[in-house]
Amino acid sequence: MTLPTPGRYLDALQQRTPLVHCITNYVAMNSSANILLAVGASPAMLHAREEAGEFTALAGALSINIGTVSADFAHGMRAAVRVAHERGTPWVLDPVAVGATGYRRRLCAELLAHAPTLIRGNASEILCLNGIANPGRGVDSTASTDQARDAAVELARRQGCLVGVSGEVDLITDGERMVHISGGHALMPRITTLGCGLSATAAAFLAVAGESPSGRLAATAAAFGGFALAGERAGTTAAGPGSFTPAFLDALYQLTPNDLDTHLALETRDAL
Amino acid sequence: MTLPTPGRYLDALQQRTPLVHCITNYVAMNSSANILLAVGASPAMLHAREEAGEFTALAGALSINIGTVSADFAHGMRAAVRVAHERGTPWVLDPVAVGATGYRRRLCAELLAHAPTLIRGNASEILCLNGIANPGRGVDSTASTDQARDAAVELARRQGCLVGVSGEVDLITDGERMVHISGGHALMPRITTLGCGLSATAAAFLAVAGESPSGRLAATAAAFGGFALAGERAGTTAAGPGSFTPAFLDALYQLTPNDLDTHLALETRDAL
Amino acid sequence: MTLPTPGRYLDALQQRTPLVHCITNYVAMNSSANILLAVGASPAMLHAREEAGEFTALAGALSINIGTVSADFAHGMRAAVRVAHERGTPWVLDPVAVGATGYRRRLCAELLAHAPTLIRGNASEILCLNGIANPGRGVDSTASTDQARDAAVELARRQGCLVGVSGEVDLITDGERMVHISGGHALMPRITTLGCGLSATAAAFLAVAGESPSGRLAATAAAFGGFALAGERAGTTAAGPGSFTPAFLDALYQLTPNDLDTHLALETRDAL
Repeated sequence: MTLPTPGRYLDALQQRTPLVHCITNYVAMNSSANILLAVGASPAMLHAREEAGEFTALAGALSINIGTVSADFAHGMRAAVRVAHERGTPWVLDPVAVGATGYRRRLCAELLAHAPTLIRGNASEILCLNGIANPGRGVDSTASTDQARDAAVELARRQGCLVGVSGEVDLITDGERMVHISGGHALMPRITTLGCGLSATAAAFLAVAGESPSGRLAATAAAFGGFALAGERAGTTAAGPGSFTPAFLDALYQLTPNDLDTHLALETRDAL
Repeated sequence: MTLPTPGRYLDALQQRTPLVHCITNYVAMNSSANILLAVGASPAMLHAREEAGEFTALAGALSINIGTVSADFAHGMRAAVRVAHERGTPWVLDPVAVGATGYRRRLCAELLAHAPTLIRGNASEILCLNGIANPGRGVDSTASTDQARDAAVELARRQGCLVGVSGEVDLITDGERMVHISGGHALMPRITTLGCGLSATAAAFLAVAGESPSGRLAATAAAFGGFALAGERAGTTAAGPGSFTPAFLDALYQLTPNDLDTHLALETRDAL
Repeated sequence: MTLPTPGRYLDALQQRTPLVHCITNYVAMNSSANILLAVGASPAMLHAREEAGEFTALAGALSINIGTVSADFAHGMRAAVRVAHERGTPWVLDPVAVGATGYRRRLCAELLAHAPTLIRGNASEILCLNGIANPGRGVDSTASTDQARDAAVELARRQGCLVGVSGEVDLITDGERMVHISGGHALMPRITTLGCGLSATAAAFLAVAGESPSGRLAATAAAFGGFALAGERAGTTAAGPGSFTPAFLDALYQLTPNDLDTHLALETRDAL
């Protein structure tokens, strides 16, 4: 089965510059803001409990990332996801290193109750979220994408959401269907918070995707595919992770709807 | 009427490397520190209530930016602006997205009571600060610089301060006189926190400007003009926002007093 | 006397990708994470008191930097250094601007009680830590490396730790022996948080250095030497601080054990 073509979502994003509310980690804030601006969205990073919910109500999508979370950020996250859930605003959960500590596991359990639209993580994070004991080491993936496939499908079904697993080949599933995205570049794991930036970018695509399950699956795949394509292009000129980063932002900025439609065939397979 | 030539302020800045105390948002911290170092200032980012005021007393200028503010940062801001006000240390207020939430409006009202030397924002932020109901969308400007002109002049008069409005053409006013700065590059709005960096840079220029109104107006214009000129130069080689950023820092670093004097004619007009 | 050759530590680091737990300042977080990834380590930035100690127990080394410290980060630091001390996990203290405020002096006094493996700072920070009244101005060094030599040796003896002093020529001492590292580039002080990144990198090298005093001294010198060498190489192409940064990350990424062994002669002198 074939999904809607991905270029339409990039086109809509560039036309509508959706406001994406990000409550993310300190390491990723600048990078994710620049990534969102490069693809055409309007980023806003703020988290104070006094205003987080009020601001989410203005946003087209919300992106939550627990990388450097502490009590005050957790308060803001709770306020924001509650508003997103109530209003039907799409929101993305990035459960960074969820397996590493009890604090992260408890916080993610709380956030899952507010129905994220998409969960994006690496294989070990998705395995952990799905209840499989697999304490990660730091924020790197130690399980392969293949190992995480069953966990992703189970998690998507249980939560009624999309699950995206980043890896050498990415996997996106709604619990019934799966899309695989290949591409990218070997340098990408050597640059910090690109995964966090992908979560925020997926939120931007979901902000313009409408509410149909196929549209949301295709829009998420467009975000992953755009990253993979921009990564490939940046990799052709980069001499290392330092020169990769500006080249990657330039490639994201130069990405066209036609690029996505030409290079990204969104073939789905049955999930299990 | 013609203001003092701008190059003298860059020269003074490069000679004296003023210490600029920044209490700014998480997204801007690294970028603003690198911008200040590139122009020749000495940045220090710290905010804890236990030390913020004590540190401000050591600084040549203070830059306050509310982008990702929360209760603990607000405490530090209050302590710092109180000391700056008491000691006559120039300080800059950057009211990021002030129109977006009540929390931001209340905090800015509090900070305004401590007599900022310069308020720098985009048109919708300046309109909001001036009491015109104009809730912004995120941190982007949705009002044109022209629409904000009257608000800027009113705000400058009411506060007895300088107001700088960033836009396609920048406007700086002390309530009596106006300076316009053109230049820059279309990519600049696609890079996060350049406006925040400009606020911090203006603080650095004010640190060496002395206390005369004309000197402060000219020094602020020199900061805006330096950004515009460096932006133009970076734009000639950049392929996108990724390559723009290092080129912009290089251009700021290479900027000479003579560059400013040659390219920046600080003609003032009457404000109203 | 000659220390173990430095290349072996870079080789071990690249083979074992040690997890380095960083509780560092907001300005440095992204930059330090990218620096650690470039040299081959696995960075994790997190600080919440609910999990900091639990996470340190998973890490190969800990890096503590007080640049933008506030009460909540200080709680996390205390928890983390306690665990590192108990478990014998190497940890690095970067006492940013310790001389600037009483808050910083008190916090550093507390942290010193938990036996850092290495203290890395600029000359004025090391002088201050050693109890010499020398309030720094901001985070810049105002004392020369030579002036700080005696203080470094005294501090190393009193603490039973390594002390590294960054400057035009770097100095590393264990209180008995001294190593000098030259190289680097004049642009390096114009880029923010490179010193913070060096502290984190030294933690990564210490994670693979074993427990012998000579091994730890050589591994620390390898970190300093790697930075100096990468800085030299980046400086050959950089047009300013903007282009220096990606070139520096590329150079760190391209650094080989053989590079270190060829360019870095770790001759020690008697300390006093």
